[in-house]
Amino acid sequence: MTTIQDVARHASVSVSTVSNVLNGRADRMRPATLARVEAAIQVLGFRPSTLARQLKTGQTPLLGLLVPSLANPMYGYIAREIETVAQQQFGYRLLIGSTYRDREKESAFFEDLLAHGVRRVIVISSLADERHFESAVERGLTVVSYDRGATPGKRSRVGHVMPDNFEAARLATAHLIAQGHRRLAFVTVAGMTMSRSAKIDGFHAAAEAAGLRAQAQVLDGGPLNEYGDSVIAEVGRATALRIARLPDAPTGIVALNDLMALGLMAGLREAGLRVPQDMSVVGIDGLFLSALSNPMLTTVQLPVPEMARAMVERAMQPRAEAEDDEREQVFAAVRLVERESVAPPPGGRQAPRGKAEKAHP
Amino acid sequence: MTTIQDVARHASVSVSTVSNVLNGRADRMRPATLARVEAAIQVLGFRPSTLARQLKTGQTPLLGLLVPSLANPMYGYIAREIETVAQQQFGYRLLIGSTYRDREKESAFFEDLLAHGVRRVIVISSLADERHFESAVERGLTVVSYDRGATPGKRSRVGHVMPDNFEAARLATAHLIAQGHRRLAFVTVAGMTMSRSAKIDGFHAAAEAAGLRAQAQVLDGGPLNEYGDSVIAEVGRATALRIARLPDAPTGIVALNDLMALGLMAGLREAGLRVPQDMSVVGIDGLFLSALSNPMLTTVQLPVPEMARAMVERAMQPRAEAEDDEREQVFAAVRLVERESVAPPPGGRQAPRGKAEKAHP
Repeated sequence: MTTIQDVARHASVSVSTVSNVLNGRADRMRPATLARVEAAIQVLGFRPSTLARQLKTGQTPLLGLLVPSLANPMYGYIAREIETVAQQQFGYRLLIGSTYRDREKESAFFEDLLAHGVRRVIVISSLADERHFESAVERGLTVVSYDRGATPGKRSRVGHVMPDNFEAARLATAHLIAQGHRRLAFVTVAGMTMSRSAKIDGFHAAAEAAGLRAQAQVLDGGPLNEYGDSVIAEVGRATALRIARLPDAPTGIVALNDLMALGLMAGLREAGLRVPQDMSVVGIDGLFLSALSNPMLTTVQLPVPEMARAMVERAMQPRAEAEDDEREQVFAAVRLVERESVAPPPGGRQAPRGKAEKAHP
Repeated sequence: MTTIQDVARHASVSVSTVSNVLNGRADRMRPATLARVEAAIQVLGFRPSTLARQLKTGQTPLLGLLVPSLANPMYGYIAREIETVAQQQFGYRLLIGSTYRDREKESAFFEDLLAHGVRRVIVISSLADERHFESAVERGLTVVSYDRGATPGKRSRVGHVMPDNFEAARLATAHLIAQGHRRLAFVTVAGMTMSRSAKIDGFHAAAEAAGLRAQAQVLDGGPLNEYGDSVIAEVGRATALRIARLPDAPTGIVALNDLMALGLMAGLREAGLRVPQDMSVVGIDGLFLSALSNPMLTTVQLPVPEMARAMVERAMQPRAEAEDDEREQVFAAVRLVERESVAPPPGGRQAPRGKAEKAHP
C-alpha cells in the first residue's frame, strides 16, 4: 500500500507538506509544489488512510475487548454478539485480548489501546478491584465493565453492565428445591468475584426461603491455573469426584456456569453417579453447548445479545455523557431452560419446607 | 489522553509544526516556536503514540485475524493460540473479525486492515477461491491462509498452513474399520472447501484400502445459515435423525469435525440409538469439549499450537521473504485420541476385507 512517505518521496517534498495538502492547508504553498504533490497522489493511487484521519481527530473506529480467554466458549459467544453490534451499528472493528483476569495484563492492554488511538473498551474481568479501570478512564478511555457492579458508595466513571447473577442462581436453586431436593450445593472456583458472590447470595436466598439454609453448602473446587479459561470444566470434573465421596452428599447442584456444569456431569459419571437419577445439576449461562450434552443440561439462560448491545452502546457514548452516566445496567431477564439434568432426588420427591417456585416464563 | 492537536493548540502552532518537532525536522524552525512546542509537550505530558510512529514507518504492531465465527469454540481455541505467540514472541495484538466464510465480508475486512495500517493477517476461510487474498497481497498485506492449500499449478504469494486433513479422516475411518465396521459414513455440510474435500478423500482412501468403497457414503447435512458458526452442531443433530431412518444405516460415522460429532451424538440419542453400542462416532479437531461429552468422543487431535506458531511466524516474515515463500506447511502430526464413542458394530466384530490399521501413537 502506498504510504504518505511514498508520496513525499515521489514529489520530492517533506511528509508534512503532503500532510498539509491532504488536510487543506495548501493556501500558502507554491502552486508548483501543490501540483507535484497532487500528481504524486494520483500516480501512486494514494488514499489517505483512516489512520491519518485518526491522527487528526484522535479517534479510531476500533473497540477494545478484553476477555479472560478467547478459548472459553462463553466469551466467544459474548464477543461475537459485541462484534455484531459494533460492526453493524457503528462500523467499528474489535481489538481483542485475553487477559486471564490478571491485573497486569489488563493494564498493559489499556496502555496498548491508548497508544493505538483506541478510546473505547469493554472489559470482562470480574476482578474485585477496578482501580486500574478508573485510571484508564483518567487517561482517556471510555471503559465498560461486564459482570461486576460499581464498588458500593464510590462514584464511578466506568460503565457497568451485568446479568442479574443473584436471580440466576436463585432461580436455579429454587428449581432444584421445587423438584424436592433438600441437600443442596453451589459449586464454584476459588477466588471471589462480584458475580460469584452474587450467585452465592442467590443460592443461599433460595435455600433460606425454603428453610434449607443448613443443608446448603458452597463447594469450592480450588483455584484455576488460568482464570477464565476452559480449565474450569476440569475443576468441575475434579470437584464431582470429591462430591461423590462426601458422607452426606448433596443431591442437587447449582454450578457456577455451564462449563463447570459440563465438567461436573463428566466427573459424576466417572464416579459412577447418574445425572439426574442420582444427582441433579443446573448450569448458568445458556451456551449452545449445554443443549448438546447427555443428559441435556438444564440451565439459566442469560440475555447475552441484549447485554452485548447495552455494552457497545454505552462504550460509544460521547465522552462527556459517558462520564456522567453512573447507571448500573442489570439485566433481569434471566430464565430457566428446563432440559434433562434435573429430576426428583433418589428416594422420591419430598415437599420442601418453603414455597416451591415456578421458573419465570 | 493528550493528542498532537492539544499540543498544537497549546503552543498556537499547526499540527504539522508539532509533527516536525517530534520527528526531528526542527532545524529551520524559529527557536521561539520550537521552545513553545517543547514546553507544550512537557506541560501536557504528551507521549508520541505508536500511531504517530506508525504513520512514519507504515507499520503497526497489530495482526489481523479473520475467523468464520468467534462463537465457534474451534476458532476460539485457534485464536487464543495465535494470540499467545503473537503477543509473547512479537508483542503484537490481534484485530479480529468474524466473516462467516463470506467473500464480501472478507474483502471489507482486508480494506479496514489496510486503512488501519495493519500489514499482516491470518485468514481462516476455506473458501474455494482465494483471488481476493491475492489482491490483498497486491495491496500490501502479508496473508496467511489456514486450512486450505494453494490452487494447484498457480504461483501464490499467500502463505498456507494446514493440518493433514486427508490423514486425519483416513485415520478416523481406519479406526472404525479396525473395530469391524463395514457400513461407513462421512457426515459433512453442503458447500465444498479444500479441507472438506481432503477429508472426504481420506475417508474414501481408508474404505478403499479395506475393500469397502461401495459401503462408504458421504452424507451432506445441508447448507448452514451462518457458515462456521455453532449451528454446525444443529446440522449434525438433524443429520443424525435422517441417518436413523436410513434402510441400510451406517454403523460407523466420521464427522467433519468435533462440533458436528457432538450434534450427531445428541441427535442419535434423540432417535433412540446408543453410541457406541448401536453406532460409533469419531470426530476431528480435538476440542477440549470433546472430552466432556457422554460418551466421551473419540477424535483425531489436530496440532493446533504448532500450526498457530507456524501461521504467526509466516505472517511476521519480512515482506520480501514472505512473497518468495511458496511453502505449503502441512502439519502431519494428527493423532487418534481413543475415548468411548467407538465400539464394534452391533452383531459383533467382523474382520474387514482389507488390512485393518493401527492408529498412529
